[in-house]
Amino acid sequence: MAHEILVVGSTALDTVETAHGRVTDALGGSAFFFAAAAARLAPVALVGVVGEDFPLERLDPLRSLGVDLDGLEVAPGRTFRWGGRYHEDMMGRDTLFTELGVFESFAPRIPAAARRRPVLFLANIQPRLQLDVLDQMEGSPLVVTDTMNLWIDTALADLRRVIARSHILIVNDEEARQLTGTRSLLGAARALQAMGPATVVVKKGEHGALLAGPDGLFAAPALPLERVVDPTGAGDTFAGGFVGSLAREMRVDGPALRRAVVRGSALASFSVEAFSLDRLLAVTPAELDARLRDFVALTDFTLD
Amino acid sequence: MAHEILVVGSTALDTVETAHGRVTDALGGSAFFFAAAAARLAPVALVGVVGEDFPLERLDPLRSLGVDLDGLEVAPGRTFRWGGRYHEDMMGRDTLFTELGVFESFAPRIPAAARRRPVLFLANIQPRLQLDVLDQMEGSPLVVTDTMNLWIDTALADLRRVIARSHILIVNDEEARQLTGTRSLLGAARALQAMGPATVVVKKGEHGALLAGPDGLFAAPALPLERVVDPTGAGDTFAGGFVGSLAREMRVDGPALRRAVVRGSALASFSVEAFSLDRLLAVTPAELDARLRDFVALTDFTLD
Repeated sequence: MAHEILVVGSTALDTVETAHGRVTDALGGSAFFFAAAAARLAPVALVGVVGEDFPLERLDPLRSLGVDLDGLEVAPGRTFRWGGRYHEDMMGRDTLFTELGVFESFAPRIPAAARRRPVLFLANIQPRLQLDVLDQMEGSPLVVTDTMNLWIDTALADLRRVIARSHILIVNDEEARQLTGTRSLLGAARALQAMGPATVVVKKGEHGALLAGPDGLFAAPALPLERVVDPTGAGDTFAGGFVGSLAREMRVDGPALRRAVVRGSALASFSVEAFSLDRLLAVTPAELDARLRDFVALTDFTLD
Repeated sequence: MAHEILVVGSTALDTVETAHGRVTDALGGSAFFFAAAAARLAPVALVGVVGEDFPLERLDPLRSLGVDLDGLEVAPGRTFRWGGRYHEDMMGRDTLFTELGVFESFAPRIPAAARRRPVLFLANIQPRLQLDVLDQMEGSPLVVTDTMNLWIDTALADLRRVIARSHILIVNDEEARQLTGTRSLLGAARALQAMGPATVVVKKGEHGALLAGPDGLFAAPALPLERVVDPTGAGDTFAGGFVGSLAREMRVDGPALRRAVVRGSALASFSVEAFSLDRLLAVTPAELDARLRDFVALTDFTLD
């Protein structure tokens, strides 16, 4: 048994270049990455939009993981496409193009069957749309929210309303600093908690994640990797593992939140080993277990 | 009982400006920071040089911690002085002046009584001098080595000789990448191990430290701090806690190395709370114990 998750976010075709190669029109977008990770741990329903040009058969592996795609609308027009090129050191990237297509007029409609799901992940979309989703939900779901710098710059008032209605906020270090004007990540996490969410997770990429939650602070490293093929979607994958873990345990206490960070980190470490969802969709339960044991070995110490 | 440590490094007077204030001619230099931290855990003897202008009474707190200063030479001339100003975000700094003074002709002479110390820390000085120190030692000390980017640029051949004769190398992330030409920290740590040291510690500042040692990888976070007053000497303080812990336990196996990283991180977290050695010299054993417990709470999780 596990709680069922609803994710609302972007569903895209990505064209990505890194030092290790290039892919064209590969599965991308926050909701696909999230779902591929979360579905390892709990049932996931997805709400998003693609265009008539979208190759729906490419979603078969997600369906095989049990992802409910009834809420994936196929709208007249072209699918959201994003193109980016990573710098040699994988630290920065340049956006080559953004074609919003049908995503420009995305108005999420939550299927009746999904409105009572007890766990909601608001992936990075317009805060106005995140509020609309919140208003469509019935019951009192656990609300976990992500966002991006664009909305901090252009839709801060709505974003603050979303944050105030969230139980858990997941942001990266830059977003945390930008949202709070605070350089110290600890200070920023505290300021974000004061905006509403009892729990704040700050993602730090290759430096891991910092959780400020009900039982204090938890710092998890990222698994050190010799070879990162494509960092795209690592943050959404982390969120998928994190939320999936909470849903699986049906608990949000301190120990469950810490485990959720570790499961999110483990799944994110797979995601970056290949382009798009390629590695994530191929992870076996035994591989995930082995990587979780790697995390224990990586962080284990005793004082005596 | 604990093994006795010898440290050879710089001893200076620092003038430092940060967003939190300014100090002039305060105790500084790698050997003083190292000794103030290591002496909490094991006996330390220090070899360095100061000028005739040095206020020797300022060393009383180090003497009170048991630091043996018989090897601190007072030479004709002025003490090494460094001045720096940290950027608002504490991430970068500008060097305002460097007056080498008596440090320019420093030729470390290890007192006879110190040559058989079983643990040697070669703090950041000219690699040629580090080799001279190694040649003066009797017995087979555990050799732990630090360096800096200047020597990677200007004295790489000698530096590689020092590294080849070291059991443990402690460098920061930039130095690790520069020494190996490898972007991945894991790859860089592996490449550094291939140069000789069985154990490599990569310091990542606010992101903690990565240890590559006999029982695999260990990642420790830095303690999240709301207020960093002065980051100067944090790396040397880390090294002092790290080496002090190993000397206290008289062990260098995997668990002892992991504890050493945690003790180094805990002491470094004190060091940055005030200018110069001010906070470090005031730490009580109870405060250190409490901070070590903070580290356990910060990193603790169970998978089941």
